[in-house]
Amino acid sequence: MIRTAIVGYGNLGRGVEAALAGAPDMELAAVFTRRDPQKLRIKMPGVPVYAYSELAEKAADLDVVVLCGGSATDLPVMTPEIAKIITVVDSFDTHAHIPEHFAAVDAAAKEGGNLAVISTGWDPGLFSVARLYANAALPNGRDYTFWGRGVSQGHSDAIRRIPGVLDARQYTVPVEEAVQRVRNGEDPVLTTRQKHTRECYVVACEGADREAIRQAIVTMPNYFDEYDTTVTFITEEELLRDHAGLPHGGSVIRSGCTGQNGEYRNTVEFSLKLDSNPFFTGSVLTACARAAYKMHQAGGTGARTIFDIPPAYLSSASPEELRAHLL
Amino acid sequence: MIRTAIVGYGNLGRGVEAALAGAPDMELAAVFTRRDPQKLRIKMPGVPVYAYSELAEKAADLDVVVLCGGSATDLPVMTPEIAKIITVVDSFDTHAHIPEHFAAVDAAAKEGGNLAVISTGWDPGLFSVARLYANAALPNGRDYTFWGRGVSQGHSDAIRRIPGVLDARQYTVPVEEAVQRVRNGEDPVLTTRQKHTRECYVVACEGADREAIRQAIVTMPNYFDEYDTTVTFITEEELLRDHAGLPHGGSVIRSGCTGQNGEYRNTVEFSLKLDSNPFFTGSVLTACARAAYKMHQAGGTGARTIFDIPPAYLSSASPEELRAHLL
Repeated sequence: MIRTAIVGYGNLGRGVEAALAGAPDMELAAVFTRRDPQKLRIKMPGVPVYAYSELAEKAADLDVVVLCGGSATDLPVMTPEIAKIITVVDSFDTHAHIPEHFAAVDAAAKEGGNLAVISTGWDPGLFSVARLYANAALPNGRDYTFWGRGVSQGHSDAIRRIPGVLDARQYTVPVEEAVQRVRNGEDPVLTTRQKHTRECYVVACEGADREAIRQAIVTMPNYFDEYDTTVTFITEEELLRDHAGLPHGGSVIRSGCTGQNGEYRNTVEFSLKLDSNPFFTGSVLTACARAAYKMHQAGGTGARTIFDIPPAYLSSASPEELRAHLL
Repeated sequence: MIRTAIVGYGNLGRGVEAALAGAPDMELAAVFTRRDPQKLRIKMPGVPVYAYSELAEKAADLDVVVLCGGSATDLPVMTPEIAKIITVVDSFDTHAHIPEHFAAVDAAAKEGGNLAVISTGWDPGLFSVARLYANAALPNGRDYTFWGRGVSQGHSDAIRRIPGVLDARQYTVPVEEAVQRVRNGEDPVLTTRQKHTRECYVVACEGADREAIRQAIVTMPNYFDEYDTTVTFITEEELLRDHAGLPHGGSVIRSGCTGQNGEYRNTVEFSLKLDSNPFFTGSVLTACARAAYKMHQAGGTGARTIFDIPPAYLSSASPEELRAHLL
């Protein structure tokens, strides 16, 4: 059994916990938290909860740690810190900063003789590796990524910070016509606005100026100003009733040519439809934790991404079983 | 430049040749044939054509060989034979015999100190690895594979062997309703008949008994008897005009649950739409030849499948470029 610990018990941590419960070769050995460990109740019975500060002294009883913190401030500090101590997996998703995060984690993991898989989940993660296979098979082509329909927690948070907003849920929605054009192999050049729309469901404080809130949302730079955005005001009850889930998904599509003169068109598509983004992401992190453990057992140290993981390592099945049943 | 040779210059060999022409880090170094090498004209200028019997003596000038023979009789003999001499890639696709083929090639490759990637292309190949990622992410779920709409060469050949048939083309067609039910997460149990239909376009010899041909097709064991099959008689001109291509494709879909009690449904789908099956397959084989070379350079010997290839090895781009642009 691969002794696995979770650091951070939010939605993602609970997703990893549930995935570990279904993994025949892994066990949840501990949960680490920056909250008061006495007050944290986890689902799985009999698993100890420790303070994050205790991780170094408990590491000898663990094989791999799954980091469930945020990319903005937690992971840039925590992943290198933990990689010095033990093999670790994170879901760092600030695409622009991946090279520097990789370098920092690589140095720390090598110093500690450990292995670290960074930036995994579904995007970055499964979507990334889908892009890589599609690019390898169709070097002459064009990539498209569509996200949604699903809840963007970053955009929901941005709305919540507007004065007069009590709560909010933002859905990213792909423009179906654009998706169809890409699937048809038309290779369209698409603007940000042509690819996705944004739907906002907002609970306003009593007496708040709704039109001012709407204006603040639709003009918000980077988040909304380049999109066709709709704002719908709802009650707190409606939000809890109709928008409690965190569904997400999307498609990576590559359209490209083969043939002596590029005469053949081809489309490769990878799609996800997820009732719960954090539980699926937690499941992918768990598979990557298994792979990180195996790569470290095989003598590997330093940072890796999903691009470096032999896919068989993600599975609990043996190579023989995989060849017989999935090949 | 990775010096790459092709063995067998049929549709698939031409597909590999075209893919090599677009690969910045690979070159077509030689073509080997069991036909008369003097009479074989290939597309790429200046590339020598040799008899298959000359492969062993030319191997020192090559890095990797891509085998473009058939799975029925060629590859079970040729892949182990060549794996003793040099690093090799094949597209062996008789699913039931993969374990024994793997064992034979593994022994031969280890004996020669070479590396061999077997059973690659798109199914087995990209479809297989899509199944593996989906199974790793959703261990609690169900797999579905739909093929088509596309030309099955095996089924077309089977029709051609019926007395009175001059030529034929068979399309495998997924049943759209079944695909939609799977996409909707209904987890249906589907019979062979419910998943695919078969469309046959047949050129009959003059005076042949068309009803007898139709009966021979629709009752043919394994090939057609378990399917709803339609037979359309056309002229040779119509066959050449409307059915000259070899399009194919399909979808691998896994539907599964996450959550503490399996309360969240998820669907993972990987789809291909290919104007030319052999040119796309040739392109995948070429990427795998690159990976085989790199794995051998890294000290690897023995047999591998796409399950064992770190995805980054398939690409001509550096790990840094991949992380910066595709992750």
